This record gives sequence, structure tokens and C-alpha cells, in this order.
Amino acid sequence: MKSKSKFKKLDVKKFVPRASGKDTPPGTVQYVGVPREEKIKIDLIEYDDSDATEYNIERPEQLNKFIPTDKIKWIRVTGVYDVELITRLGELFHINHLELEDISNTTQRPRLEERNNYLFLIFKILLLNPVDKEVSIEQVSLILGENYVLSFHETGSALFDTLRSRILSGKGKVRKMKSDYLAFALADIIIDQYFIVLEDIGDTIEGIESDLIIAPGSANQEAIYRMKRRLVYVARTIWPVRELINEIERSDHPFIHEESRIYFRNIYDHTVQIIETLESLRDLTSSMMDLYLSSVSLKLNEIMKVLTIFSALFIPLTFFAGVYGMNFKYLPELEWKWGYPLFWIFCVVATIFMLLYFRRKRWI
Amino acid sequence: MKSKSKFKKLDVKKFVPRASGKDTPPGTVQYVGVPREEKIKIDLIEYDDSDATEYNIERPEQLNKFIPTDKIKWIRVTGVYDVELITRLGELFHINHLELEDISNTTQRPRLEERNNYLFLIFKILLLNPVDKEVSIEQVSLILGENYVLSFHETGSALFDTLRSRILSGKGKVRKMKSDYLAFALADIIIDQYFIVLEDIGDTIEGIESDLIIAPGSANQEAIYRMKRRLVYVARTIWPVRELINEIERSDHPFIHEESRIYFRNIYDHTVQIIETLESLRDLTSSMMDLYLSSVSLKLNEIMKVLTIFSALFIPLTFFAGVYGMNFKYLPELEWKWGYPLFWIFCVVATIFMLLYFRRKRWI
Amino acid sequence: MKSKSKFKKLDVKKFVPRASGKDTPPGTVQYVGVPREEKIKIDLIEYDDSDATEYNIERPEQLNKFIPTDKIKWIRVTGVYDVELITRLGELFHINHLELEDISNTTQRPRLEERNNYLFLIFKILLLNPVDKEVSIEQVSLILGENYVLSFHETGSALFDTLRSRILSGKGKVRKMKSDYLAFALADIIIDQYFIVLEDIGDTIEGIESDLIIAPGSANQEAIYRMKRRLVYVARTIWPVRELINEIERSDHPFIHEESRIYFRNIYDHTVQIIETLESLRDLTSSMMDLYLSSVSLKLNEIMKVLTIFSALFIPLTFFAGVYGMNFKYLPELEWKWGYPLFWIFCVVATIFMLLYFRRKRWI
Amino acid sequence: MKSKSKFKKLDVKKFVPRASGKDTPPGTVQYVGVPREEKIKIDLIEYDDSDATEYNIERPEQLNKFIPTDKIKWIRVTGVYDVELITRLGELFHINHLELEDISNTTQRPRLEERNNYLFLIFKILLLNPVDKEVSIEQVSLILGENYVLSFHETGSALFDTLRSRILSGKGKVRKMKSDYLAFALADIIIDQYFIVLEDIGDTIEGIESDLIIAPGSANQEAIYRMKRRLVYVARTIWPVRELINEIERSDHPFIHEESRIYFRNIYDHTVQIIETLESLRDLTSSMMDLYLSSVSLKLNEIMKVLTIFSALFIPLTFFAGVYGMNFKYLPELEWKWGYPLFWIFCVVATIFMLLYFRRKRWI
Amino acid sequence: MKSKSKFKKLDVKKFVPRASGKDTPPGTVQYVGVPREEKIKIDLIEYDDSDATEYNIERPEQLNKFIPTDKIKWIRVTGVYDVELITRLGELFHINHLELEDISNTTQRPRLEERNNYLFLIFKILLLNPVDKEVSIEQVSLILGENYVLSFHETGSALFDTLRSRILSGKGKVRKMKSDYLAFALADIIIDQYFIVLEDIGDTIEGIESDLIIAPGSANQEAIYRMKRRLVYVARTIWPVRELINEIERSDHPFIHEESRIYFRNIYDHTVQIIETLESLRDLTSSMMDLYLSSVSLKLNEIMKVLTIFSALFIPLTFFAGVYGMNFKYLPELEWKWGYPLFWIFCVVATIFMLLYFRRKRWI
Repeated sequence: MKSKSKFKKLDVKKFVPRASGKDTPPGTVQYVGVPREEKIKIDLIEYDDSDATEYNIERPEQLNKFIPTDKIKWIRVTGVYDVELITRLGELFHINHLELEDISNTTQRPRLEERNNYLFLIFKILLLNPVDKEVSIEQVSLILGENYVLSFHETGSALFDTLRSRILSGKGKVRKMKSDYLAFALADIIIDQYFIVLEDIGDTIEGIESDLIIAPGSANQEAIYRMKRRLVYVARTIWPVRELINEIERSDHPFIHEESRIYFRNIYDHTVQIIETLESLRDLTSSMMDLYLSSVSLKLNEIMKVLTIFSALFIPLTFFAGVYGMNFKYLPELEWKWGYPLFWIFCVVATIFMLLYFRRKRWI
Repeated sequence: MKSKSKFKKLDVKKFVPRASGKDTPPGTVQYVGVPREEKIKIDLIEYDDSDATEYNIERPEQLNKFIPTDKIKWIRVTGVYDVELITRLGELFHINHLELEDISNTTQRPRLEERNNYLFLIFKILLLNPVDKEVSIEQVSLILGENYVLSFHETGSALFDTLRSRILSGKGKVRKMKSDYLAFALADIIIDQYFIVLEDIGDTIEGIESDLIIAPGSANQEAIYRMKRRLVYVARTIWPVRELINEIERSDHPFIHEESRIYFRNIYDHTVQIIETLESLRDLTSSMMDLYLSSVSLKLNEIMKVLTIFSALFIPLTFFAGVYGMNFKYLPELEWKWGYPLFWIFCVVATIFMLLYFRRKRWI
Repeated sequence: MKSKSKFKKLDVKKFVPRASGKDTPPGTVQYVGVPREEKIKIDLIEYDDSDATEYNIERPEQLNKFIPTDKIKWIRVTGVYDVELITRLGELFHINHLELEDISNTTQRPRLEERNNYLFLIFKILLLNPVDKEVSIEQVSLILGENYVLSFHETGSALFDTLRSRILSGKGKVRKMKSDYLAFALADIIIDQYFIVLEDIGDTIEGIESDLIIAPGSANQEAIYRMKRRLVYVARTIWPVRELINEIERSDHPFIHEESRIYFRNIYDHTVQIIETLESLRDLTSSMMDLYLSSVSLKLNEIMKVLTIFSALFIPLTFFAGVYGMNFKYLPELEWKWGYPLFWIFCVVATIFMLLYFRRKRWI
Repeated sequence: MKSKSKFKKLDVKKFVPRASGKDTPPGTVQYVGVPREEKIKIDLIEYDDSDATEYNIERPEQLNKFIPTDKIKWIRVTGVYDVELITRLGELFHINHLELEDISNTTQRPRLEERNNYLFLIFKILLLNPVDKEVSIEQVSLILGENYVLSFHETGSALFDTLRSRILSGKGKVRKMKSDYLAFALADIIIDQYFIVLEDIGDTIEGIESDLIIAPGSANQEAIYRMKRRLVYVARTIWPVRELINEIERSDHPFIHEESRIYFRNIYDHTVQIIETLESLRDLTSSMMDLYLSSVSLKLNEIMKVLTIFSALFIPLTFFAGVYGMNFKYLPELEWKWGYPLFWIFCVVATIFMLLYFRRKRWI
Repeated sequence: MKSKSKFKKLDVKKFVPRASGKDTPPGTVQYVGVPREEKIKIDLIEYDDSDATEYNIERPEQLNKFIPTDKIKWIRVTGVYDVELITRLGELFHINHLELEDISNTTQRPRLEERNNYLFLIFKILLLNPVDKEVSIEQVSLILGENYVLSFHETGSALFDTLRSRILSGKGKVRKMKSDYLAFALADIIIDQYFIVLEDIGDTIEGIESDLIIAPGSANQEAIYRMKRRLVYVARTIWPVRELINEIERSDHPFIHEESRIYFRNIYDHTVQIIETLESLRDLTSSMMDLYLSSVSLKLNEIMKVLTIFSALFIPLTFFAGVYGMNFKYLPELEWKWGYPLFWIFCVVATIFMLLYFRRKRWI
């Protein structure tokens, strides 16, 4: 009973994308997630091989003075709900309204759009709640321009702080490379995060399997079902990312330089590996469900054997006891001196006979 | 019992397309749906960048004076049963008889036909009955000419009233674009409608899942089956739409302009997302069926445990009570002073022993 | 029992093609079906735009005078067992011996062969026995020459009588078109016939579903199995027809004219729709099998609940009745004045207690 | 019990190819099958349009005088275990050592290798044991040179005796054609043999199905399992043959002449048909397993109904009989004159009531 | 109980690749396996057609003098944990840091990377523990340069000792060929090892099958589950190897010479065969699970039959015995002289009747 109350409800919104307001014309920017009151936070890191500086941006228009410089700029936008601000920001960089709509509409499918003056990439990150181990999904949209990357985050931008430190401190290759390498570095963090979620799922599956072997019960079936649901959910999120990375790698857009292709190829292999792992885990949970079902069936057999053995042993004897409890006037056995001991001897013999029969049937 | 009477019968006509009258030559226009008495309603909206006017058309021939103008014309035809009228209308625009047949035969598969003077698009819309949440399908056929769009609707043309308002009021981009954008705007509404149906299906699945966890029973299995049937039905309708949109996007027909391609690409992504969501939901309902079956098995185990425990506790005791109810003349225990208390002590000890045995087997 | 006797045996010959006599060299004409005594019947319709005449042909050689004319000729051959006659006929039209073998060997797979002087098409028709609703398959082979079509039928040539009337009466387009349109018209009739069979299958499935909801039993499982078998059988027959039609549509053989392509494209869409419908119906029967199995499980649970409730209520009471039926000399309760009423009070209380317990477990 | 002892063990060697001796360098000729003592038998048939002669060859070197002639030579080698002889033979015809290794290693996958001076084809034949109906697999390797075909057989070369007679007697086209037609004739016999095995499998499945309908039992489940195993085994053997034939048909090797392509295309269609039949039969056995499982479940329900009806009828009555067998001093009913008849009336009424209850539940 | 304690826990690490330290920049060399203390062992074999010498290398820099020579060099590195040493070694041969990272990160997916100055190949070997028959996976990375092959092994480099002997003793073709043939020879050993593992898996499956037929029980279901898990695991490892070999065969990199292609094609066929065998074995284990489940169901039916027969035989008789144990004053049968014998006659008749009933139902 208690195990049932713990059962998380299916969050349909996770599975089912919302319709984009059917009475608005296409291309209208709107935020479809839960409206929140937080202010959008904009961070700018401007860097080149020799130098890196971070700025906090209050109004999009402050970016105007940075845009013309040759340095690489990473503009990190946390919060996607302020549609008016996103629109203003988009106009500074000449972003198509269709793209701006998709940044705010966080139920988009991961994909790549190539435009003349930028590439638009939609990613999904998997965030692991450290408390209840539930996986939540957030959208990360990247706009990759000639010398800038705009990254839009719902809330989970902290994940990318290690990249920020690496740029500021000059560690790694990122400072020496173009804006496409910055986009790669962001994608690399996103995909490494998938591995972390996969590890956690693997641990959970190991736990379910152990429980299943020791004592199959109602908790197992719910855990397996929950896991299947989670795997469907995660797989659906990651599948299109593979395609997306593949498209970037094969793209001949001038902003994707030849020397970056090897890096995208590298994370492409990672996404393939993640998807194969996910498929293996789905196979495994299906096998576990089969194992569970057969355990339950087998247990039923054992229960029924116990019942049958008890019944078959005592029901005939009870009948015989009933016979000699009858009140017939002429019931000669009752008068015998050895009647009662003979009755017991009969009972013992019958029991032995039955036990041998069950032994032969391999029930005991 | 009552839950069964609520069970909707399978509407075979939804699944199985009708044969197009086997004794008529191919290319004969005919209406294969349920014949209805309503009159066909024809609305014309003529618009360009600066102006938009709506006309009610009584006879197709009234359209003759509009056809030569350069303005974009949306001719919305509600009702497809008046074969003679459809044929007259089709001849005004030089439409092939095969197409006219398909407009009236509402069991067509969504597809694209490219002709020199027009494109022919067959869509399916999903309509949600607000009362019983049943999904019905209607066919929407579009004929996209150089400067006109003919749209044929069974009954559900009200869905497109928002587009009508947008054109008349000049909101959105539609007034500035060519006829292909008008076709896109119609397709966009159709596909947004799919999202709405998907949301409703998601809600229903959430409800089934909740019920299943709390109390698995015969209502669940029927609900899951009903849901599977509905998903088969909806998936079959939507799958070919993806292909259709893809063909339009890649088409090099002169009526599909380069600047519209991005919009069709956009709704193509939506159809992909819808199909992936549908497949996830099918996976989920299959898992729910597994969960249901294992719940039923587990419940059987519990029932059998109760039966077995009761039987195993009392059947042996009943035998012993029967023994001392026997009427043997020489049955020494009956004469003992402590016979009766000893009998009870034996019963209690045997019961405790059995309970310990069941505890060890983890049955109680 | 009776329902079982109605169960049709699997006709292996339907599923498993026969080996073409392993000791004959390849290319030998032979008839592999059940030999029948009927005479082959040959009908010739010769027509052009202005005129159409029908002839009964006794000997193939009579055709010699018709072959050189420019008129379109439809030679309809009913019966394929007279190998010698088929060979004579084939030689008149310079048909390859491999093709003649395939006409008589009615277990061929639907396919297209392109030769310089003709196209060879093998179709399968589905015939519905109006009495027992069983589906039988017959082979229809077409040879499409420049100005003739040879059609070979096992028995079911009556299906094409509507086409014959249309040609003779001059209805429809067929009189105005080339021989490829005649081949299309034949294919169109064959594919319309698939829709009719599909409708019948749909009706049968609806019936099974209704029965299943009302009273799941052994008849259901056999009906579902029978339906699955029939769907496997029909699907296997229709799948290659899609390919065949597609190949004709894309063929660049000079006998397939550009203006006919649109008609073949049209019936190609029909075959796609038929196959999708078949796949949906297979999904549906699988779901029905699941529903049936879970119904049976659920019913078992209910049976076991009844048994358990009866046993749990009366077995303990029987024990107590047994106790007071014992003949111990010193059994004080027996002497009590209120012993017997107290016993009944105990029984009633115990029963109420048990019923409450079962109510709490939601069994009653 | 007896049925179990008949159960054939899985011959793992059939499924799992052996490793080619890991401590030998690649390209070493070796025989991996069961070593046998029989001598290799070499038959040579040399023929052209006008003449055909058969020779028995003792030593490979005897072939030297035949090699330069223009006549077509079919060298049939029965037995592949004499590695040294195979090597000598191979060197006469300048065959690569890799190929010679594959001739002796009879666990090869069917495939085509094209070399400058020959084509190498590995086929599998299915041999049906006439006694126990078990299917065994043997490898047939062909080397197709400009004017010779070398065929290597494990034991089953008798299958090809019909071809030998046809060549010697001059029946059929083979004498008029090139060596590629000889290879085709061999492949045709191999594939016709598949049809024969398929027919036998079909007959067996028909038998299983009949048994299943009449009396589902443990023999059925083993038969179905055995059939599934056999279908997995046969399908795995035949699948690559399709690919192989397709590659020959499309090959542009000078030894495959244009006029032979039509013959290979013909047997390609046969392999497609065989594979489709196999897949249908697999679907069918899966459905039969489902039917079997549901029959078993249904039977359990019936057994439980019988038990429940008996228990529910007699357990309450037994309690009442027990009540009036109690020895309470004050048990007024016992003194009634009509007590005993009333008891019986009560029993009859209760029984009727229970029977009506079960009738309402549709159990009887 | 005991059988359960033997059940190996799922080693999640086998299934789920680790994230490559999310706070390190991409391209950092690190070792992700279990850190071990063993020293890396480097063996060099330098050979050409006429000569072969083996050297033990202590420090990578010792290799400097060998690099410029024209002889083929096989540098075998056992141990991949000393990141610093791997880096030094990599720099000698101008290997990209991304590759060096992947050598140490042993959870890589098998794949091919082509660079200008080398090809990088990641393989997986399957090692069979001779004691518990568990399969473990190790990574083997090859770097194929113009005249050298670097092979990196976790621990299992002993597998390749036969190749070492063959080179040193001059057996086989390897001494006469280029470095690509050496890479082939290594791959050939890896793939032959797969066959050995497959054979062992086949033997285990045969064992499970035998057990399953004789006595289906809880050990079977766990064994089948374990086998399924192992097959998922092995299949996931081998699948990408097929792709890898295929890519090498089709590669036009100058280091892959035309004459080696035939060898890679040969082992490509082997990987295809391995994968097909694995898929067959997976089909087979699924069928075995079905067989197991149906055996369990059937056994339950038999248990229930026994219970039902016992209950149905004795419960009614017990009732009758109870009736004549009642103490009604007026119970005429008790006074009859033949009452008691008649009772027994009734019992025997009732029993015979019941037995006939069960016989008719085919229960006994």
C-alpha cells in the first residue's frame, strides 16, 4: 500500500508537446512553459587567444558595442520566459522570428536550422534531481554566429560553469579556437551529462534486479514499469540529438570549420554509444519483466502445491473419521477391539502413500 | 457489467476504406460517406497586401469573374456530397477528374499530387468530441493554384475561422504572401489540432495509469485496449501526413516558393514530433498492459495464499476433531480427564507451528 | 466441442508454394494446381475508339488473323491447366517459355518482367466465398503487348465482366486509350476486390470484438487465431502487389505511356492504403489477444475469490462444529445451557468478521 | 514422459559456427567437419552442344588434359575432407587459398566472391531425413570458371543426378549454354530442394495445429518450440542465399552472360518467395504458441470452476451436518420430529440456490 | 535458495559507459578503468621478409631509433593506465590527443578514425573466464601507421602470442606483407576469439534447454534471464565491430593496400556470420522463455487437477458421513440393518461416477 503511494504520477507534459496556441499566427514569440517571475540573466564572456573578460548584461542593447569586435563572444541567457526581451535580443543579432518562437517554446524537438548568418541548434539536457533521482528535461537553444554563441537556458545553466572557468582561466583549447568550437564545448557538456544520467539509471536497474531475485513482489513490477517509462522518456529525448550532431558534422556551412569536424565526429560517436546503451537497457528491463512474471507464476505453483498437499492428505482422512462418527445402529467396526488403532494405522499408511505419490511428482 | 455497456463498438469504417464502387469506371466522381442533405457552402475570401473581402458564393459559376484577378483567393467549400456541384467547380479550375473523385471519396490516404496547373493535397483532421472524448477523422482536400487555394471540408471547416479572421483583419504574414503560404497556414492549423488531440490522449492515459495503480480491474483492461485501438487509429492517420509535408517541402513545383520552404520545414518538424510522441504513448500503453497483467497475477497469488493459509490451518484440525467424534467403543483418549484441554493445546500448538511455517515462506 | 469441429484446417498449399517438379529442366511448361477437366475458354474483344467486337476463340491459331491489326485486343483465357494449349498460344505471341511456365504454375509471387516485345505481370486475386466467408486466392497473369493484353485466369474471370461490358458499350475512357490502360483497368478491378475482402475482414473483427467484450471464451481465442492466420495469409499475398504496381509506374518501357502513369500512381496509393489497413488490423488482433488473455486471468481471479470466500467462511466453522461433536467424557461446554446458542452467536460473529475482512480487501 | 524422451537435443554445431583453429595462420586449408574415412570422389562431365561424356577421375592431375579444351566441364567433387587433394585440385585451376580453406570449412556463410579467373559461390543445401523428418544442412561450393564448373559436395551430391542425366541425354537447354548456365542449373536444384523442405515443414505445422485444437497438452508446446527452433535454423540458412543470387544477377563479371541473367532473376524470385513463406510460418507458430497458452489458461479456469462449484455446494452443507452432529445437551432441533426432513429440505434449497447463482455467473 | 545466491549481480559498468570526467576539457588523456599498479609492458617486433627480431622496450624514447627504418614494426603495449607514458608514446608517433584519450578510456565504442599519418581502430575482445564461464570485455586499440602497428591491450595481450610466434618463425604470409596485413592478422585473432565465446554460449544454451525439458523450475528462469543478459551484452559489443571492418574494407586510405582488401572482406563475412548466429540465439532464448512459461502454466493445471479430483471425490462423501453422524432423534436410516453397507455402496458408486466424469474431461 505504501509503495503505491510513492508512485509518481506520469507527467503528461513531459511526453506530450503542447500545441502552440492555435489562435496565434505562426511565428509569434510566446513562452509555453510554466510562467515564472524570475528575471532573465544575461552573461557575456568575450575572449580571444590572449584575453577573456566576463560582463553582466542588464539590457540587450548593451551588447551593441560588443557585436562588431572580432573576439569570440559567449552570451549566456538564463531564463526564456520574457518574450519581449528575447525578441529584442534576437533582433540585435538578426534572428528569424520562427527561431525566437522556438527558444521560448520549450517543447521543441532537438534539431539544426542553417541560416545565412547563423546556425540554430536546439538541445535537450537531462537534469538529475539528487533527492528523488527523477530525471527532468530542459531545453538549451544555441545560436552560433560567425564570432558569437548565444545560449538560452531554462534554469540549468550552472552545468556550464566549468566551461566558463576554462575560458576565463585559459585552460584547454577553447580560447584558441573559433565560435564553432565553443558550440562544440557546450554540446560536449550536454552529452557528458547524458552519461551521468545513464549511470544513475544503470544503478537503479541493478537495484531492481537484486530485489527481483531476492523477493519478487508488487514493488518490483512498479519499479520495472517506472523504469520502462523513464527509458521511453529519455530515449525519445536523446534520439534526435544524434541526428542533430550528425547534421552539424556533415554541414558545409562556412561557420563550421574543417578542424572542428573531428570534435563533432567524436561526440557523435558518444551519442551513438548512449543510444545503444539505452536500447540495451530497454531490452534488459523487458527481460526483467518476463523474469518477474515467470517468478510470480512459479510462486503460484508453489502455493498451490502446499494447498493441494494439505488437502489431499487430510480430506480423505477426515472422511474416514466422519464415517466412524456415524450413528448407524449396525456399524460392526465400532465394536472391534482394534478398531481405533487400526484406524490410526490406516491413516499413517494412507499419508505415507500420498507423500510417496507427491515425491514421485517432484512436489516435495 | 455497467463498464461493459459503456464500451464503444469498433467503428470498422474508420479502419477499413471502402471500395470505390467496383462497377463504375475509374475517374467517376462519387460521394462514399454517409449521404447528407445539407447544401454545400462556398465562401470566397479575396485578398492582397492592402485589402481583403469575403463573399458568399451560391453557384460555382459566380467564381468566374474572380479567377482572372491577381489577388489571392481562398475558396472554402464545406460539404463534399454534391458530386455534380463539385464537378462543376472542378471544371472551372481545370481540375482532373481523378482528383474530384478523391475529394468526394473521403477515405483517401493523405498525399500530394503535382499537376502542371495546381497541387492537390489531401489532409486528415482529427476532431475531438468534447462530450465523450472520442476522436473522429475528417478529410480536408486542398487545391493550390497559382493565386488561389480551394479547400474542401466535410463538416469541420469552423476550425479554420481563426485564419479567416487573421486574413480579414490583416494580422500575421498571410496577407503579404503568396497562395502557398495560405496552404501552409491551413496545414499549420491542421497540425496544431493534432497536438490538441495528443494532449487529450495524454490526459486519458494519465487517468488510466492512476486507476491501474490504485485498483487494477476489468475497467483497466478495457480502457487500455480502447487506448491502444485509438492510438493505432490516430497513428495510421498521421503517419502519411509527415510524408506529405516532406514532399511539399522538397517539391520544386513553381507554386512552392523558396521563402515558404522554411515554413513547411517547420511544420514537418512538428509532424515528426507528433509521431515520436505517438510511438512513445504506444510503448507506454504496452507497458501498462504488462503491468496490468502482472498485477492480476500477483493478486491471484494473494488470493491463493489466503485460501491456502485457511485450509492448511483448519483442515488438519477438523480431521482431529473428527477423530474424537468417532464412536469406537474402545477409544481411550475420550475417557481421559485432560483429553479435551489437551486437544485444544494441540490445536493451538499446531496453529502456531503452521503460522511460523507461513511466515518463513513470507506469505504473512 | 461443436465450435472446434467448425475450425477450418490450415490449407498448407495456400502458404507453402510447391516445388516446380525437381526432375524437369527449368523452363518446362506444366500445371501444378489441381488438375481439372474443364476446357480452356478463350474470349477475344477487339476494339478501338469507334468500335468493339467480341469473339469466342476455339483454337489459338484463330487469333492469327487478329494479331496484325492496329486495334486493341483483350484475349481473356479462363483455365490454365492445358499446358499444350498455353504453349501454342504463347508461341503465337512470341512469349518466353519461362513466362508460360509461370502462368501454369499458379503459386508464383506477384511480379513484373519486362521483355522487348511485352511486359509480363503476375497478380493475385482474393475471392471471398459468400457462404463461409473463407478467402481463396487465384492467380491472374497478364501479358501486355503493344496492342494486346492476354489475361490468364484460373476460374475467377467473371470478376472482369464489368470491364467487358464497359468496353463493349463504350463507357469510360478505356476505348480511347492504349493497351496499357486496359492492363490498368484490369489491375484496378483486382485492387478494388482487395477492398471488398478487407471490408469483410473488418466486419468479422468487429464481431469478434463484440463477442469478446460480452463473454470471453474458447470460441474467441480460436476466432482471433483464425483471423491472425487469415491476415498473415492476405498480407503475404498483397505485399508484393504494391511493389509490382510501383515498378510499372516507374517503368520506362515503351508500352507504358506517360499518360497512363497517373492511373498506375493512383492504384499504387490504393495498395499502400490497403497494406496500412492490414497492418492496423494485425495490431488490433494482437491487442484483442492480449485483452482476451487478461480477461481470462481476471475471471480466474474472480472464481478463486468465490472459492476462497466460501472456504474461509465455512472451514473454521466446520471445525468448531466438529469440536462439539467430539465424544470426550469431560467436555464441559456441552453441559452448558447456553452452549448451543453461544455456538451460533460465535458463528455469526466470525462470519461478519470474515466478511468485513474480505470487504476491506475489496473482494466483495 | 515418453514425449519428452523423443525430444531432440539442440545440435549446437548447427547454430554456432566453429572458430577456424585459432593457432593456424589465415589461409590454411583445413577440414572442420567430422572427419570421415571415405575417399573423395571426382566425376567429370565434358560436353558441348553436340556431345557429352562422363569420366571418373582418380587423381586431380588427370584433369590437366581436359582443362585447355573449349568444351564445358562439370567437375563434381563429393567429399571435402581430404585437404591435400583439395589443394592439389585448387592449384590446377589457380584457385586462391582463402577459397580452398572455405571449401573445407563447411560452416561458411553463403556468399559470392568474384575473382579475375573465376567466381566462387558457397551454397547451403537442406537435406530432409526421410525417417525422422529432421533437416540437415550441407555446404555446396561452386567454382565457376570460363568453361568449367567445379562443384564440391559434403555427401549430398546425389541430388544433382537429374542434372547429370539431363546433360548426358541432351534434354533441356543446358547443353546449348555456357558454364554460367550450368551454375544456374545447380543453383536451381538447390532452391527447388528448399521448396521440398518447406512443404514438409508446412505439413508438420498443419499436424501441430490439428493436435492443438483437439487436445492442447505438453506435447504441443514442445512441438511448437521445436518448430520455432527449426524455422530459426532454416531461415538463417536461406536468408544469405537470396543476397547471393541477387549479387550474381547484378554482377558484371564477364563469365555471367547477359542471356543467363533472366534465369538467375527467376530463381531470385523463388528465394524471395521462400523467405516470405518462412516469415509467414514464423508468424503462424508464434500465433499458435499464443493460442496454446490461452487454451491452457482457459482450461485452468474450467478446472477451478469445477472445484469451486463442488466446494461451494458441499462445504456449507457439511457445516450444517456438523452442527447437528454436535453433542450439546440442550440442542432443541435434534428433538423435533421433522428435524431430519427439514435438514434435507434445507440442503436441497441451498443447493438449488447455489446452482442458480453459478448459472447466473455463466459457470454452468 | 542456493540457486539464488549463485546469481551474479549485473555489472552495470559493463553496460553503461562512464562519463569522461565532466570537469576536464575534451582531449585530456585519462584512464577511466580500475586503477592498477602494474607497469606498462612494451614489446617491439621489427621484421621484414628476411628477418624478425623482438625487443623489450623500457622507455618510449628507445623506440626513436626504430621509427625511421623501413621494416614493419609491431609495438605491443600491455596496460593502458599510465596516462603519462601513453602520452609520451603517442607524441613519438604524432598521434592526436583525442585518440590517446580514447586508448585510456576503455569504454569506447569500436570504430575507425582515419588520419593523414595513421588509422586508429578500437576493437573489443571477449575473454572467457575458464572457471565461471563469465564473459569479460577488454578494449584493444590499434594505431596503423605506414610501417608500424601500435596495439594497446588492457591485460589480454597473451591472446596474440600465436601471431608473435608466427612472425618470429616466419610462418604464414605476415612477414611478406605490409603493416595493414599485420592489423588484419590482429583483427582476425580478435574475431576468431568471438567464435570461441559463441561456442561456449551455444553449449550453455544447450544445457539450459536440456534442463528445461526435464524439469522446469526456478533455476531455468534465472539461467534464461542470465543468458538473455549476456547475449544483449555480447551483441552490443560485436555489432559495431562489423561496421568497423566494413569501413576498413571500403577505405581508400593509402595505408590499406588493394591486396589486403580481400582479407578484410573475409573477416567481414565472419562478423556477419557471428551477428546472425547471435540473433538466432536470442530468438532461441526467447522461445525457451515462452516454453518455460507454458510449462509452468501446464504444471499448474496438473496440480489443480489433482486438488480438484481429491476435493470433488471426498467433499460430497464427507458431507454424507456428516449427515449420518447427526444426532437427530428421528433419523430412520440409522435404524436400518443395511444402512451402513448401503452407505458404503453409495460411496463406491459416487466415486466411480466421479472418476468417469473426470475421465470424460480427460483429466485422468
